[in-house]
Amino acid sequence: MALAGAGVIAMNHPAQAQTAAQPASAATAPAAPTFASAADSDPLALGWMQGFPPAPDKIIRFDLASNRFPVTRWTFSHVRQLMPTAAVWRGRGAPSALPHAPRDIGQVPYTDANGQRHTFAEMLALTYTDGILVMHKGKVIYEKYFGALDDHTQHIAMSVTKSFVGTLAAMLAAEGKLDPSAPVTRYLPEMAGTAYGDATVREVMDMTVGVKYSENYADPKAEIWDYSRAGGMIPRPADYAGPKDFYAFLKTLQKDGEHDTAFAYKTVNAELLAWIVKRVSGQNLSTVLSERIWQPMGAEQDAYFIVDSIGNESGGGGLNTALRDLARFGETMRNDGRFNGRQIIPAAVVADIRRGGDPAKFAKAGYATLPGWSYRNMWWVANDDHGAFEARGIHGQAIYVDPKAQMTIVRYASHPIAANGANDPVTLPAFRALAQELMKQQ
Amino acid sequence: MALAGAGVIAMNHPAQAQTAAQPASAATAPAAPTFASAADSDPLALGWMQGFPPAPDKIIRFDLASNRFPVTRWTFSHVRQLMPTAAVWRGRGAPSALPHAPRDIGQVPYTDANGQRHTFAEMLALTYTDGILVMHKGKVIYEKYFGALDDHTQHIAMSVTKSFVGTLAAMLAAEGKLDPSAPVTRYLPEMAGTAYGDATVREVMDMTVGVKYSENYADPKAEIWDYSRAGGMIPRPADYAGPKDFYAFLKTLQKDGEHDTAFAYKTVNAELLAWIVKRVSGQNLSTVLSERIWQPMGAEQDAYFIVDSIGNESGGGGLNTALRDLARFGETMRNDGRFNGRQIIPAAVVADIRRGGDPAKFAKAGYATLPGWSYRNMWWVANDDHGAFEARGIHGQAIYVDPKAQMTIVRYASHPIAANGANDPVTLPAFRALAQELMKQQ
Repeated sequence: MALAGAGVIAMNHPAQAQTAAQPASAATAPAAPTFASAADSDPLALGWMQGFPPAPDKIIRFDLASNRFPVTRWTFSHVRQLMPTAAVWRGRGAPSALPHAPRDIGQVPYTDANGQRHTFAEMLALTYTDGILVMHKGKVIYEKYFGALDDHTQHIAMSVTKSFVGTLAAMLAAEGKLDPSAPVTRYLPEMAGTAYGDATVREVMDMTVGVKYSENYADPKAEIWDYSRAGGMIPRPADYAGPKDFYAFLKTLQKDGEHDTAFAYKTVNAELLAWIVKRVSGQNLSTVLSERIWQPMGAEQDAYFIVDSIGNESGGGGLNTALRDLARFGETMRNDGRFNGRQIIPAAVVADIRRGGDPAKFAKAGYATLPGWSYRNMWWVANDDHGAFEARGIHGQAIYVDPKAQMTIVRYASHPIAANGANDPVTLPAFRALAQELMKQQ
Repeated sequence: MALAGAGVIAMNHPAQAQTAAQPASAATAPAAPTFASAADSDPLALGWMQGFPPAPDKIIRFDLASNRFPVTRWTFSHVRQLMPTAAVWRGRGAPSALPHAPRDIGQVPYTDANGQRHTFAEMLALTYTDGILVMHKGKVIYEKYFGALDDHTQHIAMSVTKSFVGTLAAMLAAEGKLDPSAPVTRYLPEMAGTAYGDATVREVMDMTVGVKYSENYADPKAEIWDYSRAGGMIPRPADYAGPKDFYAFLKTLQKDGEHDTAFAYKTVNAELLAWIVKRVSGQNLSTVLSERIWQPMGAEQDAYFIVDSIGNESGGGGLNTALRDLARFGETMRNDGRFNGRQIIPAAVVADIRRGGDPAKFAKAGYATLPGWSYRNMWWVANDDHGAFEARGIHGQAIYVDPKAQMTIVRYASHPIAANGANDPVTLPAFRALAQELMKQQ
């Protein structure tokens, strides 16, 4: 079964996943009203982790409870306080300019995929937004924070992480350091005899690998939980005897079906690609990201990765950034790789991503909320008349770029439902309506 | 028994402590030659945590081995990759100026406390320096990094942390928000019935509390280990049933002897003072430090604290900073609280610290390497003709300020011996000799 945008669940677990793993066919229904509203789950209003020390029932620890909504409304903005991390250095000096030209777009009306009328501002609460920033023609026209997030604290990007990894891999390929047509085993000989033993790097980058690995959150036996436990992203039982780092887990994966026939979204592909990026660059993922993107684009804050027990950064979903820096990256992609007065990503790399992947292969995955989309280098491509493309992470994390409208939207959220099938019907029409409104005003 | 400058051992453990806990009377002997030299223990040369993934015997995990020299030569610069942390935000914008005017002071000769001749540069290797920065008249004249440290990575400050906490407490006192003469229980009523039930805040700030708590690293049953386990700074056995956060541990402490009779260096006093600072300010320690010092002084990098299982920052020894920011703080203290064009710390607060505490009470602690010194607001004061004062952390962490020579030295190190009795005979004469050389050149 397919999950729209589902990815690594750094802080998810089976109990919550029963709800998260809605089949895609049901995902066009609005979020079930069984969850507290955004206002009623506001972590500050609820008093979590306030007081010195907090009251016993207001304490959040690294345990299964910390992974459940509504506690996630706090944890998604405080990952480093719960687990080991590695810094993505912003460099020295002042951050790059991010000029503000505020507009009141909160009242922009739209109709969601279920035919209901909302305003843009209403969408934010309906989808448990922690922070949103809208750029138009290079200026910040709207920036709001809610709950535990503010304009400089890092929030977990979930699978938006994958789009960074895919972009870095494509950059290395453009430099001739990585050959997408090469077998995975050229870079990772230890993957011989696994699902990846006869896969190419391109199949990994576009997630068309046939690998026995389920990302079905509803199934406590799904391999996504083994992956998460191996990486230390969720607590392990006392008698845990499984792999204790990401790569030890990757080496256990076996083939299931054929490669290159259908898009199959699996976090392990991103983790494997991150491993390849390290091997090819000879650097840690945090260093590659710092030197190639974070420093050149003049990030305002350091970012950070969750690391496993042996220091491997989680390339599947472990990046945490300030929202403004996510906006800088989105603008870099919108501007054909240029930002902060320099060409940060080769224009050809961005063009290749924006052209998208094979829609026929994508269609086989059955994403009801993403008709006609495709997937390329770990980006989601709308293939629409605006040329929109997106980086997506569970619980509502997003970089949404609309080149035609000269608009970039970045959003961090803590939606109670992991799969973006619950977000998309409410958010994607809002993004599109805002784009059209902004184009009218030009 | 007294340990010179021994404090919290975020990353220490009994096996290492057998060596660390030299009696002060033996501390004037040079470091025993049973340890690998600085060059032979260089973490880069040894290949630790290099490769993707590192070879099995080059991996460093959060386990007892990670706390042993020479592995500490890497871990002291990578604490956040091993445990949960909280950021001390530097703010936005460019860092404050830290002008460089390099001088080759490496060849400055001196005689150590044991009568041996060295140069300043030789001292660095003899004492396992990870980074050193010397400022003279407000300019960086010397800056060197070794092993795993560089000019922007955070290194654990160990008990230098305490001097930040003491300064913050004194700032709150100067504002009338904290009364040093008040009983501890005015701010922490839950400490009634403990060792602190009849202690004053002043006694905590100056460490003259009579509390049953041993910081003797040689004794596996010493309370320092209970404290460290409670805070999660060292691994816990599987059957651990003790306190699971710092404050739960503090509440178990019982009285031993009288208050206000002798200086007794115990990390729990700093942890308790950090707790008081939070209660009085109504903010987390990381926020207090960010708003009152890190942002105003224009820090170049975020700093971070180790946090326990419920988010309490370690005020006893858990701060990690880049060396340049430690230099900015040292210069702030040298300049009577002024730096970056503003009065960051009230001049009266700095003057009070520099006047020192009661040398008679200090003498009772028997620090052979610190004759005539005293202790005030968690700073060590030489009471010498240069007005020198110091923030000190085990394994060689230091901020050494010599006002008369207009010199500030900051140093991070990973000396195999925890107690600074092993460092002092080699480093303190070097610092003094450099001061005198710089005064000659004026």
